[in-house]
Amino acid sequence: MITRLGTERRRMSKIVIHNGTIYLCGQVAKDSDAGIKEQTRTMLEKVDELLMQAGSDRKHILSATIYIKEMKYFAEMNEVWDAWVIEGASPARACVEASLARPELLVEISVIAAVI
Amino acid sequence: MITRLGTERRRMSKIVIHNGTIYLCGQVAKDSDAGIKEQTRTMLEKVDELLMQAGSDRKHILSATIYIKEMKYFAEMNEVWDAWVIEGASPARACVEASLARPELLVEISVIAAVI
Amino acid sequence: MITRLGTERRRMSKIVIHNGTIYLCGQVAKDSDAGIKEQTRTMLEKVDELLMQAGSDRKHILSATIYIKEMKYFAEMNEVWDAWVIEGASPARACVEASLARPELLVEISVIAAVI
Repeated sequence: MITRLGTERRRMSKIVIHNGTIYLCGQVAKDSDAGIKEQTRTMLEKVDELLMQAGSDRKHILSATIYIKEMKYFAEMNEVWDAWVIEGASPARACVEASLARPELLVEISVIAAVI
Repeated sequence: MITRLGTERRRMSKIVIHNGTIYLCGQVAKDSDAGIKEQTRTMLEKVDELLMQAGSDRKHILSATIYIKEMKYFAEMNEVWDAWVIEGASPARACVEASLARPELLVEISVIAAVI
Repeated sequence: MITRLGTERRRMSKIVIHNGTIYLCGQVAKDSDAGIKEQTRTMLEKVDELLMQAGSDRKHILSATIYIKEMKYFAEMNEVWDAWVIEGASPARACVEASLARPELLVEISVIAAVI
């Protein structure tokens, strides 16, 4: 059985749940004119909101892929990330450089999490 | 138990099935000299073919990661994508810019789906 | 139930296990000053080590995403990869070009595997 939430847009579902595993659609900042720290902060806020809708939370993230527009933002992104993850419950993570859908976007995250 | 299909090439299996979840190997266009719309169309055709072999279909895709050579192709890729996905059954998706194995390739997709 | 191993660093867990599926954190070379073949070799050595810790091995990899700094390294990376994977038991794979956390890193891999 597959549960899909946030299916208003035809293009993608915001949340897909299958077999106890949650797949979130790629999340970017709420305000794409902000700097890297604020973009990271509001992007992770959206992850929190989606995980809550899916009946999970940031302690149950299994894997995260972070795409960052330029590696010069790496340290500042990590500052916000490190404060956000729960000690002892952080996900497996990969972070690579990639340009995103709009030029002003500095960071995007793809998340796989567990149903609680 | 792991089922692997399309294992002719040592480098990768085209389809790997485990625990009700299907992992497809990255798919590109059938004709890499075509433009973005045609490349997206035949890439998604290959996804359909692999999902059929795996006993699934595009309504059961959980997550898709799209790599696009340049974001200038984003709108045209999405036109083909939006027509291809099933309303209310689209996957979680992320799309980032990345160069691919051969310079003429404009788009590649990585798919996780559910066994029906 | 989620099992996390290698949680010394707050930033990420090296291994996350859930529902029979293992997620490894992105692996890079042991010696980032080496050339592409040596970087690929020691990166895959680290994958072997983590999979062993997780109670699995390279025959049980489901999916791998390879990020390569420049596609000019593609053939040499594949030489090492092709010798490393087990015939008939290779994962689904995607490989795209991306710059990595440090400029000298030439290749990174993200792995999903099955618990044996």
